[in-house]
Amino acid sequence: MVQLGVNRYGKAEIRMVRVGRGAGSGGSDVLRDWNVSTSLSGDLAGSHLTGDNSNVLATDSQKNKVYALAKELGPVEPEAFALALAPFFTSSQAPISRARVSIDEYGWNPIGAGGYSFARAGDLVRTTTVIHDVDAGTSLVSGIKDLIVMNTTGSEFWGFPKDPYTTLPETKDRILATAVNASWRFWPDTFGRVDWGWAFGRAKQTILDTFAGTYSYSLQQMLFALGSALIAAIPEICEVRLALPNRHHFIVDLAPFGLDNDREVYHADDRPYGLIEGSVLADFAPDASLAWT
Amino acid sequence: MVQLGVNRYGKAEIRMVRVGRGAGSGGSDVLRDWNVSTSLSGDLAGSHLTGDNSNVLATDSQKNKVYALAKELGPVEPEAFALALAPFFTSSQAPISRARVSIDEYGWNPIGAGGYSFARAGDLVRTTTVIHDVDAGTSLVSGIKDLIVMNTTGSEFWGFPKDPYTTLPETKDRILATAVNASWRFWPDTFGRVDWGWAFGRAKQTILDTFAGTYSYSLQQMLFALGSALIAAIPEICEVRLALPNRHHFIVDLAPFGLDNDREVYHADDRPYGLIEGSVLADFAPDASLAWT
Amino acid sequence: MVQLGVNRYGKAEIRMVRVGRGAGSGGSDVLRDWNVSTSLSGDLAGSHLTGDNSNVLATDSQKNKVYALAKELGPVEPEAFALALAPFFTSSQAPISRARVSIDEYGWNPIGAGGYSFARAGDLVRTTTVIHDVDAGTSLVSGIKDLIVMNTTGSEFWGFPKDPYTTLPETKDRILATAVNASWRFWPDTFGRVDWGWAFGRAKQTILDTFAGTYSYSLQQMLFALGSALIAAIPEICEVRLALPNRHHFIVDLAPFGLDNDREVYHADDRPYGLIEGSVLADFAPDASLAWT
Amino acid sequence: MVQLGVNRYGKAEIRMVRVGRGAGSGGSDVLRDWNVSTSLSGDLAGSHLTGDNSNVLATDSQKNKVYALAKELGPVEPEAFALALAPFFTSSQAPISRARVSIDEYGWNPIGAGGYSFARAGDLVRTTTVIHDVDAGTSLVSGIKDLIVMNTTGSEFWGFPKDPYTTLPETKDRILATAVNASWRFWPDTFGRVDWGWAFGRAKQTILDTFAGTYSYSLQQMLFALGSALIAAIPEICEVRLALPNRHHFIVDLAPFGLDNDREVYHADDRPYGLIEGSVLADFAPDASLAWT
Repeated sequence: MVQLGVNRYGKAEIRMVRVGRGAGSGGSDVLRDWNVSTSLSGDLAGSHLTGDNSNVLATDSQKNKVYALAKELGPVEPEAFALALAPFFTSSQAPISRARVSIDEYGWNPIGAGGYSFARAGDLVRTTTVIHDVDAGTSLVSGIKDLIVMNTTGSEFWGFPKDPYTTLPETKDRILATAVNASWRFWPDTFGRVDWGWAFGRAKQTILDTFAGTYSYSLQQMLFALGSALIAAIPEICEVRLALPNRHHFIVDLAPFGLDNDREVYHADDRPYGLIEGSVLADFAPDASLAWT
Repeated sequence: MVQLGVNRYGKAEIRMVRVGRGAGSGGSDVLRDWNVSTSLSGDLAGSHLTGDNSNVLATDSQKNKVYALAKELGPVEPEAFALALAPFFTSSQAPISRARVSIDEYGWNPIGAGGYSFARAGDLVRTTTVIHDVDAGTSLVSGIKDLIVMNTTGSEFWGFPKDPYTTLPETKDRILATAVNASWRFWPDTFGRVDWGWAFGRAKQTILDTFAGTYSYSLQQMLFALGSALIAAIPEICEVRLALPNRHHFIVDLAPFGLDNDREVYHADDRPYGLIEGSVLADFAPDASLAWT
Repeated sequence: MVQLGVNRYGKAEIRMVRVGRGAGSGGSDVLRDWNVSTSLSGDLAGSHLTGDNSNVLATDSQKNKVYALAKELGPVEPEAFALALAPFFTSSQAPISRARVSIDEYGWNPIGAGGYSFARAGDLVRTTTVIHDVDAGTSLVSGIKDLIVMNTTGSEFWGFPKDPYTTLPETKDRILATAVNASWRFWPDTFGRVDWGWAFGRAKQTILDTFAGTYSYSLQQMLFALGSALIAAIPEICEVRLALPNRHHFIVDLAPFGLDNDREVYHADDRPYGLIEGSVLADFAPDASLAWT
Repeated sequence: MVQLGVNRYGKAEIRMVRVGRGAGSGGSDVLRDWNVSTSLSGDLAGSHLTGDNSNVLATDSQKNKVYALAKELGPVEPEAFALALAPFFTSSQAPISRARVSIDEYGWNPIGAGGYSFARAGDLVRTTTVIHDVDAGTSLVSGIKDLIVMNTTGSEFWGFPKDPYTTLPETKDRILATAVNASWRFWPDTFGRVDWGWAFGRAKQTILDTFAGTYSYSLQQMLFALGSALIAAIPEICEVRLALPNRHHFIVDLAPFGLDNDREVYHADDRPYGLIEGSVLADFAPDASLAWT
């Protein structure tokens, strides 16, 4: 005999662009270019076990609500949107006890003088995830994906254990390159007073400054430095989780061609890559509960 | 003040091909085409906080061990490989208390009569993940990624709630298409006696048979049918988790061109898509502990 | 001063699934899963120079015609569809003198006994491109993309020149792996009598047989063998063009770990890769004219 | 009987990073992050027909030369690199009569004050392709890939023909979004005097300015405007080829929810998309010869 375990369902990757006509400085347009995903949980056993869909708000209806809410709210920050959307589902659908809203935002930079022309900023993806549970309350995690950075020096790696499979030489000077994937959880009592746009901008700048300003003995050390700096820079954050791929740049051996290679010519390898994952917590950070699910 | 939270590190996406020379039926070669990722946890605070790497077995050393073990074990099933590799790290490195080994396997079909020619089977990815923790013991989860299936009929969706954002018409006959992403957890006491190759083949066939044989009122119902069938077919499985994207096929309106369209011409849409996720558990299934982390 | 040069426009990547209800053997459904692209050329200077769109059949209209024609023709072979579609545009739109129709077909294998369940065959993409020009006539090129094959032995590479940058050792036994991308052009007078389904199946099997059956001294040699075999197997073909990436599999040096590695453990590298491109022509093959544009 | 047709071979996607230590302003490092592909043609019949590789400079040797030349030349512009590399192959290998060198460059922006920290600029890819043929001479084409831009207004599309498959309504105000893929060919006698870095920067800015400054009645019109502006801005250019996907943004119908939608909420569709391709030539532009092959 079997039983139904945890489950959820929703609409993934709703590619919505919200134009705020004249909503920007000087009357320029504002762009919100989003990839929105919704996911609902609750009393859904009927649908799984007998095909009774009376509790299953169609994913198409979820999508429609996303579009309608965007009209109603205007070109707001993604956190504000997700905080408004998640409770809508639980409050309007009695069998739904938990809603998850996740948004990826793609940036655009204004071009020209007309106020309506933009070029996509391809340098990173801004993210936010809100989970609202009728019992456990609301969590909010924002972040950055794929902020690719490199230090051409200022990185060492040595002092590691030498097991029988260790052939890596120690180095006092290597390239350190990674794609910063960082997510930060906010203290629950702060949602009403955070300036989300400011917080994201400050987080991005803090990551760039910390990466550039940290002399590194390991990517783990860089990870902890990034997490610590984010919590210091934005006190409303209680936890940071990071996943840092170590994008290896191997020095090319030019000796066979009669050339030296003093940290000048590198091969950027695709795979395999190191992957460093970790969390940094503010002291007394509350339990994460559902925030990372 | 901040503190270090959960963390792990390792080498991701080691693209290894192990050729078993003459190891197959009739003396043909056997291919194991893998993408291996390792991840270690333990006493790693020094590396994060002070750059002291004395506990950090280099990810390069982890990669080397993967290659060496493949030589030693021969072209074994991925589960056998992962079960051998994970404890190696914890037993040989005192500060390491937990190791995670994850393998994606790409299939190849023999061609020709020579026993050494193959064509890649692009229809799915076989997966396995072993986590060995010195305290919590060992877990093993295997699975399938991207097994894409379609029923051109035999699927309904109706009886769902109509909220103010519901415009989706009910349907008694639609295309049901999905990419089956399924993972199954084995009972811990079974690792020594499961025939991994048999189990994978039976799981794949069970998925195909169940998908083809289930009249569906919702993708949730299909999810539960798939999970139940897998547990019934392979008693060593205690839990199945599935993620089923609903690959929408929209009927094209041909009326403007004076043509009817009785379930013949469809637009296969990319995004957004429904996403149905859920778990099915055998009765008395043990707690998952670290298995899904 | 500037002038307008060659130009064309159309709708790309129309993802259409055509279900032939009961059209298959034993009354099973037939699936045509296509990615269709159209492109038109002709008297389009007005649109480019002055924004006069009176000659510009909307790409949306082109898309609609694709859907409508699929309804009308039924689940035909992609070549038959493209041969019907391309002249439609030139004959119905006077300013349009040339039409290009390109189709990628994704294969599906039947599963179950119901006749309406399928699993996607992910092993290759079938392609066809028809160009119809009111002056130059009609060309037809079909092909295969991404048929990935590997010989674990039976491949040598030696005797190459040694310039000052050559460090590659000669080898008498290496893995040869590639993704066959082949396109074959048909003699213009054959379109009316080729069994397109047969031709594609025979081409695929010929590629597999030839790859498995050819002892190789270079990937160039394999390319010529593949092209020659296709022309021999399907006399209606007058030219074959191939692009063969050399998917390098590097033997891993296990000596530091006290292990030999007699062609057993390989690293499958992503980039860079060799890329071998070439054409094989039947004697007296007609000029390609627009066929490859 | 069959014969060998046109052919070429080389190493594709050499991912090289060249660090110019202290070579930048104020002693900062300079980064050249490249994806280099080489391709050689000539007397290669032996390799294809008999496996005689005596004329086949190994693709591995080509790769080594790329690395070595990068050391020797320093962090030069990609055009300068390609112009130096291509003739090397034809002059050092007698059987090789033609060489093609293609480079994709990924941009990086400096961060921090140290002069050695960078963040990847993900907004476009800079490209260049040099073809050197011992008979036909040298051609050079540079360009941009994936410069994604959007006008939220200032775009109309109407006056197009209405065939029986036309359902698209005319519009006097739509979003116009595209990914600019542009390549520009230089007059052959200019290679020695073009400032490649200046030319690329001016081309990019010209594209942005022209896109923002052009009121559009069709994407074809925008294409011609872009090509014309590039030739006007950089007189050393004799031809521009553009491929502009029309990234459709569909207005969402919010009427069922009692909401109007005056150009505010859009669905950004993936596929299908319009694709507009065309060339703009300077008067008296020389024949392209091999430049676009």
